[in-house]
Amino acid sequence: MLTVRRLDIADAGILIAGARARAQEIGVPMCIAVTDEGGTLLAFERMDGGKVTSVTIAIDKAYTAAAAKKATHEYGEISQPGGPAYGIASAIGGRLMVVGGGLPVIVDGEVVGAIGVSSGTPAQDRDVAQAGIAGLSG
Amino acid sequence: MLTVRRLDIADAGILIAGARARAQEIGVPMCIAVTDEGGTLLAFERMDGGKVTSVTIAIDKAYTAAAAKKATHEYGEISQPGGPAYGIASAIGGRLMVVGGGLPVIVDGEVVGAIGVSSGTPAQDRDVAQAGIAGLSG
Amino acid sequence: MLTVRRLDIADAGILIAGARARAQEIGVPMCIAVTDEGGTLLAFERMDGGKVTSVTIAIDKAYTAAAAKKATHEYGEISQPGGPAYGIASAIGGRLMVVGGGLPVIVDGEVVGAIGVSSGTPAQDRDVAQAGIAGLSG
Amino acid sequence: MLTVRRLDIADAGILIAGARARAQEIGVPMCIAVTDEGGTLLAFERMDGGKVTSVTIAIDKAYTAAAAKKATHEYGEISQPGGPAYGIASAIGGRLMVVGGGLPVIVDGEVVGAIGVSSGTPAQDRDVAQAGIAGLSG
Repeated sequence: MLTVRRLDIADAGILIAGARARAQEIGVPMCIAVTDEGGTLLAFERMDGGKVTSVTIAIDKAYTAAAAKKATHEYGEISQPGGPAYGIASAIGGRLMVVGGGLPVIVDGEVVGAIGVSSGTPAQDRDVAQAGIAGLSG
Repeated sequence: MLTVRRLDIADAGILIAGARARAQEIGVPMCIAVTDEGGTLLAFERMDGGKVTSVTIAIDKAYTAAAAKKATHEYGEISQPGGPAYGIASAIGGRLMVVGGGLPVIVDGEVVGAIGVSSGTPAQDRDVAQAGIAGLSG
Repeated sequence: MLTVRRLDIADAGILIAGARARAQEIGVPMCIAVTDEGGTLLAFERMDGGKVTSVTIAIDKAYTAAAAKKATHEYGEISQPGGPAYGIASAIGGRLMVVGGGLPVIVDGEVVGAIGVSSGTPAQDRDVAQAGIAGLSG
Repeated sequence: MLTVRRLDIADAGILIAGARARAQEIGVPMCIAVTDEGGTLLAFERMDGGKVTSVTIAIDKAYTAAAAKKATHEYGEISQPGGPAYGIASAIGGRLMVVGGGLPVIVDGEVVGAIGVSSGTPAQDRDVAQAGIAGLSG
């Protein structure tokens, strides 16, 4: 039998609050999603002005980061033409995201969930996702 | 050009808080989704213990209630065998929900969004959704 | 080699205009779709106030009526529990519609396209679809 | 509560008429789609000779331009190999279009809808979409 550790809804609230604060700081309204370690949605917020396309993209970034235990920008690197994971971006009906902004949440070396952010540039999305994680461990 | 009113993220938070409080009162952890008037997700919460299947079901109940401007339990009645909307339950890839728990949020006679709840019985889901709406108008 | 007759875009405009006029007469803003004989969309209009869910439903009613060469309300009858086509409503990912409002357009005994209407009751949808066809043959 | 502005069906008709006129001028029959600001279809026309694949592509270009508030050709630039949004083309089940021909309709700095055009080269599609917008503001 396995025992699995995963984010609870209070943790998810902390992750979203940290990300939201950073999004406000940089002035970019974001879609922010948090999943459990299996990639299933725990909490989501579309800030006023967040993009409609980013609803799905933020959820899928968090899904990818949790379920593949890898930051989405890392997939961006290895899925370039000629790279070992070339073509992976269209896997799982396009749910596997290779654009930055999805980060696994790691506690004691174990992936316990993930955060996915979308509506800014990929660099902004990643920055805001990181701020969410900083809030949890802070 | 049309002018439309829709829930903002603060309204969504009030709806979710009202639903969550009622869910705790009846002791059933729920998935709670809020969409804008076009059926696009605004906010979501899976309470600890909420069902994995209910993530999609809650989101689709809110989608249906907003986008069809009708409570999902009303579709349940008219889509029974022999009813005028029989068979509608599988429309839109199965997203059109006919199980109770999705309610439009109506302000001054206009649908401005919706709430969808899932994880309990359909009666419990509907009760919790109603409590969310009561919180907004309270 | 086969020669196929199908609606052209001018015919589609006539079908939509006839349906729109009837929708305005009964005071129900509708989604109106016209497909060619293969079920592929030719023209679509969401009248102001037409439902968001009805975009897909109107298109799929027209698709069904053209591609299956049968009015959707006829499928409603034969797909009831115990009926010969029971369960067909979820076929083709839910695109096969069994709710009234989709009618084939028949010229000289041949299906040349279809019209699908949604946003009212199924009886209203069917009435408005019929008005579109009347406009074409009128 | 938010207040948003969106295209009405009369605006959509003007956009399509402007695009159609330009398509006739350059001799390329097109599929032309108009969505509201949330990316939901308002009106669609497949000119006689427009491509079957372009039905979905035109609708998805308009969806992308409205829902992401960005012209699809801009996504084409930033999603090249090595670019920051590489891989975004397969997001949302492939609905996120990075090929030119989808343009947001902007009024007073606000995205109120979008137009998507397909059947020609991406440059032709973009040219025809632009002509639709010119018709609206003219």
